[in-house]
Amino acid sequence: MCAAGGVTPDPPLSDPGTVADLGEFGLIARITAGRELSPGTLLGPGDDAAVLAAADGRVVVTTDVLVEGVHFRLDWSTPHQVGRKAVAANLADVAAMGAVPTALVVGLAVPGRTPISTVDGLAAGMWAEAAQAGVGIVGGDVVSSEQLVVAVTALGDLQGRAPVTRSGARPGDVLGLCGRLGWSAAGLAVLRRGLPSPSARSPQAVVAAHRVPEPPYGAGPQAASAGATAMIDISDGLLADAGHVAEASGVGIGIDSAALPVASLLVEVASALDADARHWVLTGGEDHALLASFPAGVALPVGWTEIGVVREGRGVTVDGGEVLPRDEVLPAGWQHFS
Amino acid sequence: MCAAGGVTPDPPLSDPGTVADLGEFGLIARITAGRELSPGTLLGPGDDAAVLAAADGRVVVTTDVLVEGVHFRLDWSTPHQVGRKAVAANLADVAAMGAVPTALVVGLAVPGRTPISTVDGLAAGMWAEAAQAGVGIVGGDVVSSEQLVVAVTALGDLQGRAPVTRSGARPGDVLGLCGRLGWSAAGLAVLRRGLPSPSARSPQAVVAAHRVPEPPYGAGPQAASAGATAMIDISDGLLADAGHVAEASGVGIGIDSAALPVASLLVEVASALDADARHWVLTGGEDHALLASFPAGVALPVGWTEIGVVREGRGVTVDGGEVLPRDEVLPAGWQHFS
Repeated sequence: MCAAGGVTPDPPLSDPGTVADLGEFGLIARITAGRELSPGTLLGPGDDAAVLAAADGRVVVTTDVLVEGVHFRLDWSTPHQVGRKAVAANLADVAAMGAVPTALVVGLAVPGRTPISTVDGLAAGMWAEAAQAGVGIVGGDVVSSEQLVVAVTALGDLQGRAPVTRSGARPGDVLGLCGRLGWSAAGLAVLRRGLPSPSARSPQAVVAAHRVPEPPYGAGPQAASAGATAMIDISDGLLADAGHVAEASGVGIGIDSAALPVASLLVEVASALDADARHWVLTGGEDHALLASFPAGVALPVGWTEIGVVREGRGVTVDGGEVLPRDEVLPAGWQHFS
Repeated sequence: MCAAGGVTPDPPLSDPGTVADLGEFGLIARITAGRELSPGTLLGPGDDAAVLAAADGRVVVTTDVLVEGVHFRLDWSTPHQVGRKAVAANLADVAAMGAVPTALVVGLAVPGRTPISTVDGLAAGMWAEAAQAGVGIVGGDVVSSEQLVVAVTALGDLQGRAPVTRSGARPGDVLGLCGRLGWSAAGLAVLRRGLPSPSARSPQAVVAAHRVPEPPYGAGPQAASAGATAMIDISDGLLADAGHVAEASGVGIGIDSAALPVASLLVEVASALDADARHWVLTGGEDHALLASFPAGVALPVGWTEIGVVREGRGVTVDGGEVLPRDEVLPAGWQHFS
């Protein structure tokens, strides 16, 4: 990363030290110096607050907190990967409203003993993922703590469209999916249980998916334009998040498991680990695919797959058969404190 | 607080247990249930993101992170006070741009062993302070952690005014102050050193000021309307924050110490503690007074006091005498990791 390059023309190649060595203002300069902000940034970092264009007359806002040891482990992911993941989770929430991200603000609580290289990597990862969505980090706060905590807030622009909430699904709608399912869960299983036998295909792709999700940011506004009636970011798992839509909309949702994308790689990794790929696909969180309902007869946008229907009733069924009771669906998604 | 009243009609009066007992979704319901949101909230908590009106076509955004043991101690402050303080710091930043707050989002990282009553108090305090500014908490995230961390993001509306940055002060401007100085520092000194002798006046007012600041929210938009050229929220201390304005504006700032408000209570508490009230006023942070520059000849708005001038040069002087070198000014304000 460019970091303090503007300040120190010839930075030493040796260990740059810890956060405590650099201090708060030095750290902020290092995170923000030389970065590019989006055109809608009317006032960027360095003042009491940032100012952003909101030409639409509305603004979308969402926030997520990631805690070391809970959401990520620095022995399983690089700081760069953690930074990307923290930002991706927020940008996916903006996309799930049908909005285009406009900016991020970031709160960073970091132990003084943390190597500067860790914060450099974290910041570079956040900027890299933000750049994928064409936005920048317009403000933030850096404080000391005992445990690394990353709090990201993302803002978005609806560009004149109505927000696509969780509550608009109607009986007769078709259910569409865009993005990966079960990959992060498979990657987590690999990290937890160790690598599968050498005969299996490389599980690196699923481990990478756990470390850095690849949400289909553009698919959110695309679905909104196509008339999506409800939409949600799948962060807790397909069944859990379909359940959230069903509950908010007062409808039932039927999933056709044959239509679900189960990558052959997942099947192979599952086989090597004696695990169930279908379970990962139905319940694994953190891939940040988008789930949306569309009026019947609407052609789903490119990249979207029809995976089920919305019907009268409540709850989520798979293959029209048994209704999964709430207490089987909910524990599927990650709940804190459980 | 109303809390889960809507869910449990007859809540037990006994200890409601810990956060781990309640779980993530129960905790979110408890924090948000039955609260009033501001009219500009087009979509509140419960979806992937919130949607707010931004009629001005711009949005102000700022974020702050408070960490237990660093920014607050639960043996010195109640959870309600911590909640108020966390929100106040952000709303003061919005005011310092000349904007009116519109909404908050809150990220809460909380150990599972935390009593629910602590989160109840924290949430009630946040809502209470938000209500003072006419806003609500439109979204958030609740996660588990080892240390209590509160990350607050505030949004604001410039109502057609230009944002008042730190960089607009011009030589010849007069320097104005609105709000208290040194009260929080005095309160912190009392908490650190124990109560002064019984002959002193009660230090409860300064302790209360440390626990909950009282930023003059309305004074920010008021100053902007009056033509303020630069403005800052005094969170790091008068000298440090005046230094930030001087540096951003490329000017010098001269403070007239005789014009500074030194409450007689501060003098008495200082005397009892063998401390220096003037030092608290010049360097104490966290009172969130507003400091602004105005063109010469402008009548300062009601509630504002003229405390100095902007001149050519750089740095901050007190009483036209010695220029305080940067390394004397900066340590005055709180820096993390120092």
